[in-house]
Amino acid sequence: MPRIVEVREGVLKKNDQLARDLRARFDRLGVFVISLVSSPGAGKTALLQRTLKELKASRRLAALVGDLATDNDARRLAEAGVPVRQITTGTVCHLDAEMTERALAGWNLESLDLLFIENVGNLVCPSSYDLGEHLRIVLLSVTEGEDKPLKYPTIFNTADLAVITKIDLAEAVGFDRDEAYRNVRSVRPGLEVLEVSARTGLGMDHWFARLGELSARRGSAVRTG
Amino acid sequence: MPRIVEVREGVLKKNDQLARDLRARFDRLGVFVISLVSSPGAGKTALLQRTLKELKASRRLAALVGDLATDNDARRLAEAGVPVRQITTGTVCHLDAEMTERALAGWNLESLDLLFIENVGNLVCPSSYDLGEHLRIVLLSVTEGEDKPLKYPTIFNTADLAVITKIDLAEAVGFDRDEAYRNVRSVRPGLEVLEVSARTGLGMDHWFARLGELSARRGSAVRTG
Repeated sequence: MPRIVEVREGVLKKNDQLARDLRARFDRLGVFVISLVSSPGAGKTALLQRTLKELKASRRLAALVGDLATDNDARRLAEAGVPVRQITTGTVCHLDAEMTERALAGWNLESLDLLFIENVGNLVCPSSYDLGEHLRIVLLSVTEGEDKPLKYPTIFNTADLAVITKIDLAEAVGFDRDEAYRNVRSVRPGLEVLEVSARTGLGMDHWFARLGELSARRGSAVRTG
Repeated sequence: MPRIVEVREGVLKKNDQLARDLRARFDRLGVFVISLVSSPGAGKTALLQRTLKELKASRRLAALVGDLATDNDARRLAEAGVPVRQITTGTVCHLDAEMTERALAGWNLESLDLLFIENVGNLVCPSSYDLGEHLRIVLLSVTEGEDKPLKYPTIFNTADLAVITKIDLAEAVGFDRDEAYRNVRSVRPGLEVLEVSARTGLGMDHWFARLGELSARRGSAVRTG
């Protein structure tokens, strides 16, 4: 179906251009943008909830969250007391740069340090769409099985950091940590992997620390660049 | 983007026609076809593994399984000692009728009673593509959260049966059964819901029995119709 491919490439090209413009704008205004991708139910919102609550004392935060339907996640995240906006995509299985830009309208971006974007729960579609983010984090929950990086290689390939979630359930589900790491790195050699449980707090301090380092490092590179 | 919509509608129309032809062929040859859809890691393959092992004594079975990459699932399913074929979709987030038809080439369908099709792990894309199946089953694991029907309504709307998987983990993850049922039925009133654990065997006898009833009832309606 060459016609589809052609149209699709046009869409992606346009998205990439818009994403580059967005990133330049984020850089200019000094806001560091982090996106989260994963399967449905891997725990993006739970991780973000705790992260917003923890970091809001020291950083100025906001979040965008994408779903096909409902504003459940926006309401959950707003409990942290930071600005949150929901993007509902209808039947579309991912966010894109245009939706992101539209959702930011009227927000005072220069008053932010960190903007989180929680993508639609999907291990396929979001991988092709740059949102202008500086850091893309892929979540993999222990309940999904160790083989997901092999079966959804592109999303792991386009990520800058992998976070294994629900690590408190590792034993209950017979999670094989060595195999999971092997699979992540066979798809993306050298990718940093963290382990957390947003429910019990396990690994969360290390997660907060790395988030601070990664955003500071990139932020300063951007500012001096 | 009207051009995309137009092309997409053409693709779906073509898929629907091909799916109807496939279903007519399945009916003629007396094979009942069941597809499984879910998030990545909800347990489609684990459920099918046990199901193939259990039913192969009394029914003639085969399975098709879709993934972007790897033939892991086909190898897992083939351990049951029934014919299995893997469809690798590359970057495509769902199976379609054409892939299904191609994968069946050379198989003697009239020698089968039941054909299972395990779709790519995705709660969005597969909902638009009829594969010619008689029964579409959506899986929801307790670890994903009770809100998934609200967030991915179309896939629940196009399903004939919902199966809540990993029910042995319900307590460990604080699964709220009432809320899950309420959410399923607010999207699809009256949808039958089963609960299983392929790991512990909980609910599996009821699942096997319902599968037998559903395939027999539809099969005989088809034969007399």
